[in-house]
Amino acid sequence: MAKKWVYFFGNGKADGNGKMKDVLGGKGAGLAEMTNSGVPVPPGFTISTEACNFFYDNKRKLSKEIIEQADKNLLRLEKVMNKKLGGKSDPLLVSVRSGSKFSMPGMMDTVLNLGLNDDSVKGLTEKTGNERFAYDAYRRFIQMFGNVVMGVDKEHFEHHMTEMKNKKGIKLDTELNTGDLKQLVEMYKKAYQEQTGQVFPTDPKKQLAMTRDAVFNSWNNPRAITYRKIHNIDHNLGTAVNVQAMVFGNMGNDSATGVGFTRNPSTGEKMFYGEYLINAQGEDVVAGIRTPNPIAHLEKDMPEAFKQLKAITSRLEKHYRDVQDFEFTIEKNTLYMLQTRNGKRTAFAAIKVAVDMVREKLITKEEAVLRVEPQQLDQMLHPILDPKAKIQVIAKGLNASPGAASGQVVFTAEDAVNWAKKTKTLLVRMETSPDDIHGMAVSEGILTSRGGATSHAVVVSRQMGKPCVAGCETIKVDEKNKMFSINSTTVREGDWITIDGGTGRVILGKVDTVESEIIQVLTGKLDVKQSTLFNDYKLIMSWADQIRSLKVRANADIPRDAKIARALGAEGIGLCRTEHMFFAEERLPIVQEMILADTEEDRIKALDKLLPMQKEDFKGLFREMDGYPVTIRLLDPPLHEFLPKREELMVEIAVLEATKGDINLISQKKKLLDRIQDLHEFNPMLGLRGCRLGIYYPEITRMQARAIFEAACELTKEGYKIVPEIMVPLVGIVTELKSQKELIIETAKEVTKKCGKKLTYSIGTMIELPRAAITADEIAVEAEFFSFGTNDLTQTTFGFSRDDSGKFLNYYLENGILETSPFQAIDQKGVGQLMKIGVEKGRRTRPGMKIGICGEHGGEPSSVEFCHRTGLSYVSCSPFRIPIARLAAAHGKLKDKK
Amino acid sequence: MAKKWVYFFGNGKADGNGKMKDVLGGKGAGLAEMTNSGVPVPPGFTISTEACNFFYDNKRKLSKEIIEQADKNLLRLEKVMNKKLGGKSDPLLVSVRSGSKFSMPGMMDTVLNLGLNDDSVKGLTEKTGNERFAYDAYRRFIQMFGNVVMGVDKEHFEHHMTEMKNKKGIKLDTELNTGDLKQLVEMYKKAYQEQTGQVFPTDPKKQLAMTRDAVFNSWNNPRAITYRKIHNIDHNLGTAVNVQAMVFGNMGNDSATGVGFTRNPSTGEKMFYGEYLINAQGEDVVAGIRTPNPIAHLEKDMPEAFKQLKAITSRLEKHYRDVQDFEFTIEKNTLYMLQTRNGKRTAFAAIKVAVDMVREKLITKEEAVLRVEPQQLDQMLHPILDPKAKIQVIAKGLNASPGAASGQVVFTAEDAVNWAKKTKTLLVRMETSPDDIHGMAVSEGILTSRGGATSHAVVVSRQMGKPCVAGCETIKVDEKNKMFSINSTTVREGDWITIDGGTGRVILGKVDTVESEIIQVLTGKLDVKQSTLFNDYKLIMSWADQIRSLKVRANADIPRDAKIARALGAEGIGLCRTEHMFFAEERLPIVQEMILADTEEDRIKALDKLLPMQKEDFKGLFREMDGYPVTIRLLDPPLHEFLPKREELMVEIAVLEATKGDINLISQKKKLLDRIQDLHEFNPMLGLRGCRLGIYYPEITRMQARAIFEAACELTKEGYKIVPEIMVPLVGIVTELKSQKELIIETAKEVTKKCGKKLTYSIGTMIELPRAAITADEIAVEAEFFSFGTNDLTQTTFGFSRDDSGKFLNYYLENGILETSPFQAIDQKGVGQLMKIGVEKGRRTRPGMKIGICGEHGGEPSSVEFCHRTGLSYVSCSPFRIPIARLAAAHGKLKDKK
Repeated sequence: MAKKWVYFFGNGKADGNGKMKDVLGGKGAGLAEMTNSGVPVPPGFTISTEACNFFYDNKRKLSKEIIEQADKNLLRLEKVMNKKLGGKSDPLLVSVRSGSKFSMPGMMDTVLNLGLNDDSVKGLTEKTGNERFAYDAYRRFIQMFGNVVMGVDKEHFEHHMTEMKNKKGIKLDTELNTGDLKQLVEMYKKAYQEQTGQVFPTDPKKQLAMTRDAVFNSWNNPRAITYRKIHNIDHNLGTAVNVQAMVFGNMGNDSATGVGFTRNPSTGEKMFYGEYLINAQGEDVVAGIRTPNPIAHLEKDMPEAFKQLKAITSRLEKHYRDVQDFEFTIEKNTLYMLQTRNGKRTAFAAIKVAVDMVREKLITKEEAVLRVEPQQLDQMLHPILDPKAKIQVIAKGLNASPGAASGQVVFTAEDAVNWAKKTKTLLVRMETSPDDIHGMAVSEGILTSRGGATSHAVVVSRQMGKPCVAGCETIKVDEKNKMFSINSTTVREGDWITIDGGTGRVILGKVDTVESEIIQVLTGKLDVKQSTLFNDYKLIMSWADQIRSLKVRANADIPRDAKIARALGAEGIGLCRTEHMFFAEERLPIVQEMILADTEEDRIKALDKLLPMQKEDFKGLFREMDGYPVTIRLLDPPLHEFLPKREELMVEIAVLEATKGDINLISQKKKLLDRIQDLHEFNPMLGLRGCRLGIYYPEITRMQARAIFEAACELTKEGYKIVPEIMVPLVGIVTELKSQKELIIETAKEVTKKCGKKLTYSIGTMIELPRAAITADEIAVEAEFFSFGTNDLTQTTFGFSRDDSGKFLNYYLENGILETSPFQAIDQKGVGQLMKIGVEKGRRTRPGMKIGICGEHGGEPSSVEFCHRTGLSYVSCSPFRIPIARLAAAHGKLKDKK
Repeated sequence: MAKKWVYFFGNGKADGNGKMKDVLGGKGAGLAEMTNSGVPVPPGFTISTEACNFFYDNKRKLSKEIIEQADKNLLRLEKVMNKKLGGKSDPLLVSVRSGSKFSMPGMMDTVLNLGLNDDSVKGLTEKTGNERFAYDAYRRFIQMFGNVVMGVDKEHFEHHMTEMKNKKGIKLDTELNTGDLKQLVEMYKKAYQEQTGQVFPTDPKKQLAMTRDAVFNSWNNPRAITYRKIHNIDHNLGTAVNVQAMVFGNMGNDSATGVGFTRNPSTGEKMFYGEYLINAQGEDVVAGIRTPNPIAHLEKDMPEAFKQLKAITSRLEKHYRDVQDFEFTIEKNTLYMLQTRNGKRTAFAAIKVAVDMVREKLITKEEAVLRVEPQQLDQMLHPILDPKAKIQVIAKGLNASPGAASGQVVFTAEDAVNWAKKTKTLLVRMETSPDDIHGMAVSEGILTSRGGATSHAVVVSRQMGKPCVAGCETIKVDEKNKMFSINSTTVREGDWITIDGGTGRVILGKVDTVESEIIQVLTGKLDVKQSTLFNDYKLIMSWADQIRSLKVRANADIPRDAKIARALGAEGIGLCRTEHMFFAEERLPIVQEMILADTEEDRIKALDKLLPMQKEDFKGLFREMDGYPVTIRLLDPPLHEFLPKREELMVEIAVLEATKGDINLISQKKKLLDRIQDLHEFNPMLGLRGCRLGIYYPEITRMQARAIFEAACELTKEGYKIVPEIMVPLVGIVTELKSQKELIIETAKEVTKKCGKKLTYSIGTMIELPRAAITADEIAVEAEFFSFGTNDLTQTTFGFSRDDSGKFLNYYLENGILETSPFQAIDQKGVGQLMKIGVEKGRRTRPGMKIGICGEHGGEPSSVEFCHRTGLSYVSCSPFRIPIARLAAAHGKLKDKK
């Protein structure tokens, strides 16, 4: 038997079905499926993707066999339609469309109204009674065919029309009359001949064959190739070609066309939703020339068709078990479905639809959970711009931390603190550093001109749940003169701007925002009864929690963050960054005293002053997390982050010297500079930081351990259940961890002795260096738990500094060298492989070892699913991403089963 | 049958043998082996390491069985010696020594003269006729026993002697007479009793039992534990205890003691070499109180003993098939061998001995090659300090690049160039940067106060074959005032200093150096006939070359380096760093013009000026390497390295503004600063460098590719055979390489078309990021070869910046957290694992792929052997390390066979 290359659909039966996307492409499979379900679809046939591959393997020619099968299917189509392709009366016209396995919107070619020529245009006129429509279709067909099939620039056609309109002094195409269009048809045919050296083909079969090959060729046009590269689509899949009878909604008042949804895609309400136009074509609905009617009116206009449409679409919803987004045409009272697909929807709608469909017993709870995209939950948690507001966008940066914020612009953390006493501020910086934290904390949002997707500003903003637009390189920040500019626009201190962290937009002026309802309920600002969303949200999250096996913890440093994290469902703290506490206004001078100490003795004195403060920090966190584990990371950043900037001090001294300033002051500043020079590093990210600090200055580790254990002891006496997990950062060699562990255990013993209560604790390490992952078996001898620090691991695995990579990383993303920033989603091929090695080797030494992740990736859905698949015990992320992680963890588990 | 715990040796027969190091320890096995070979060794017995382990498993007590076996062996020893332990006349005295499988010099305990008490000391007096000697031995024994066995601080004994000497007004121990010593014995016994609460044990058996247990206990003293940690010795091996009859070389003029070598350890000449003293103890020979006689004189003094000694040592040399370093004692005309071991020797001796022994058919060529330590060859290649010179060492830094150099101190590269026109210079810098290269090139040596073992100064010095002492933190360099100081010593510009790169010493003043003979012959400065070394060197290297399978290439950027590399045996260039060419005085302004260009057009203009220069560079290299492959790496460093320093410019501008300087100048400098700010990075090592440059500025890659291909074309026409390998640096993602490859191939096609000659070339990549190793299978689809850049790979795998890590890395090495710097020898557990993954995955995609290494490790012996084992095709290293790599490669191959 000959191989089947062409698949027919029509009259309630199709050769293929919905599962055959490999062979029929997405569109072809959908048409077959609808046809089989008894939905009225204009009939037609699909030439398979296999034919496309044959075409390429055979010097871009199809075989006789394929051509014969296509011809036979055309005959069958003519028979079903009782029309002849390009016939003289009531001609069959067809559309020819591409359609590959994965949707590649707009990348390949389409030709409509195929079959028109000087004869059939008359048949069409006769049939429709609308000569103008017929010649307009003919004109369009010539241009589309010339452009798509023969590569003639559209301009060669369009300038004729422009000239004609100028001559007649009219502006709109619709003002052209039938005579004009007839004239244009002649001009277009001439243009075609001039440009191609060939007469425009009048033979409909020739038209079809040429178009079919053109569609196959369009699989390898440059933009399609680039699209596939970017989206990682296999170049060998090929496209199918769909040849389908044209139907017309503009054949009179018994014809119509429209689009719709089976439920409201914005709110999720179960209501028939959409719009239509009588005597119109599909593009008219979208074009907005005439105002379409709400679909409910169709019941009055065409009761029969309406009834049928409602029945069909609700059948389709049941068939696909999801909200359908459909297109239809009514040609002379006969309804045709042109397309149906699962409808896109907002987070609000996604949740409502999912919950409703479970109640309707249409889908299971598991399916409901899968219907909500974790990333979408962001929408529900962050304040958003009032969608009705009119806005003036002046720049666009990275959409770094979602939510909208308006505020008066300030350029330093100090100014932010001062201004914030009386107004809302928006902090604008070249980039932020840890000593900007107090300024960030009081501002509504943060805008930076430099820094990538996980730069300091972004990480801290997300953790604080504050909107942030980062790396907005088109704005020039002049911090000294307290202004920034974009082209000719200048924004000064005190001017109002608004940022939309969800889209990266920077907007001039104040825009009203709407606060998230979920957050309002969770924080007790809104009664749950007043919320339409909350119960559905809660339900879907409870289903997700029942399904998932991966735990979710929060990255939180202060009690306030810990509290909101618990409200959002955190099952412990996975990362408390102790250095954030060092930057507090009243502590920084003591921290500096400690760093600048000349002797160990002086250093210990300063540390002794910090001890009671750190202890109170930990007590606050422990109280909020009563009964849940709290992972505390020992001091991590390079010490010079706590000191004045080296170059600024150099400038100060030089100026003081040049202007014969106070000698004592100069000598004092020089002494400070000396110490800063000592600590200066070319690549601080790879320098004296992490556990290297605690090894070099063991007194720091001792102080931090003491603060943890004393806090635990005091609260244990009060009846709290405290589970501290002490985490040593940046370990690459097992002996590093061992030496720190000894100090910690020693301190624990001392404190326990005094306290008299037994303290339960564990000591583990971050796995954030390639060497740590590679030697995880050795490290697990000492480590009781691992936590992947994927920010640093990504930096070292790629050799990308996250502070500096913005420039080339953006270039990489724009030019398809990378698909996604590895700082946003875990790079599964590289970083992920190291994680796998780390898990496998770690558990080889210590079976069942607790292993988590506390990098920024812990709240990114694809990364969470990867963590689940890799066998991690938990993910930890910033508080506002916890619901996302919970849902993604459930998705991971459900996808396992498949 | 009972388990054997104790092994006797004596009278020409031993229970054990030389292979039983596990059970007998190194010393015990050696004594057994010598005894079995008929060498006269004082008899004794060894209590096994198994007994030690039993001791620890059994609460630090031996079993009855073990004690009985030990007692039996003591009886046997007494019988053989015909003496009784601690007997009243002619007493048997013994030494008790530790001895584990691996030598742990000085870590564990030893007691000599055991068996002395108030009775036996009289027997000893009688026997030796030397009462003073007997009581001195007794005094020493009490102190040693008290200290080693009972843990009494030596001070408790020694203060008595100090007091006595003070009272008598004498300085030396030797000035004490017999009466004094008798008095001291009584005082010591009293001190023993006071400190331990016990009477000093007079029972020799009790003395022995207590000492035996003390030696076992010393296995776990803190310094032994630390030593084992540092040297990775298993803590469960345990130590043996050797109990051996004491013999005395000081029993009169028929007694003597001495040390010697079977061949000259300095030159390798085959001559009996050593020295001795009549009527003396071992320590007298070393102590230098009396001047020992050359060993040849012994023939006259004691002809019988001399003949026997010569016969025995030459037999031992044959037995061990290596130069022996021996100790002997003649007691009343009877010769005893106390120790023999393979003798340490200089590189010169190692080579001569190895070659001679092959000629003597004592060893094979393979063994000869293994007898020369690759690292030793350094001695033969670098000029060395005249060993006879008197020197004043003022500081010590890292022994970074071997060789000795004297010069007048200069503090900037410019000064170096100027001074060097009329004198020898020594460049002293806080640290060097690429724009110091011309200054380094003209200086005799380099001294830096900062930077680790592979800092810029070190890497470049080694490549240039120049002596360098780096990271000498005790010196304070004041570049501004052109001076440096160490404590109270100040060295100013123009002062002479000398550095010894082999030891890290910094020496005040000029010291004569001796240039390497090998280099003189290789460079034609010395006729081979005048060299005593060269032929042997050449022979051993030719044997190494026959054996090895790993190829050896050179890292060389300029024709002069390439030439010396060839002379030293390089089989191609493995790394030509094109950026080094950019720093040349006449080019830097053009490079800056290129970097500062505002438009692509201006950048291309500057690049067009660089093109002919680069082409000439490559032609020079290609000519030297005619027929051999030349790997050229595209531009790698961050661009700001070519620009003035940011902070210096900031200071300049601030000062100009504060002092109301020229406005035009200020604005010009500000513009420059703007661009430098643009390029400024927090972690340049992880920023816009490597292939990221060529991707961001494709015109740079195009220029470099064009220079390579045009050079290849022109020389091909002249008849040269050119094999360029173009290497793309810092690839982490296959698409990076792909995009650069496309540019290179495009350029190659253009040049080939014009040239008319077919050019053979290949395109590959560095594997220097963890992600590159992990995804080597993907990268190998594009890469035709790999070269491991282990400097960068080490930096990213460990998260250590090699410029900044000096501080904590030294601390790590001193505190046993690391054994070796991973920048010196490949970290086989971490970095090496990534290399293995890279090789395995790369060759999975591209079987038999050419894979090399071009990091600094390519010339370090253990790393070269690792590369061999990992299946690399070649190593590439700085020219002066090529012989080392050749020899190490042969070692690797020979160790395979074992």
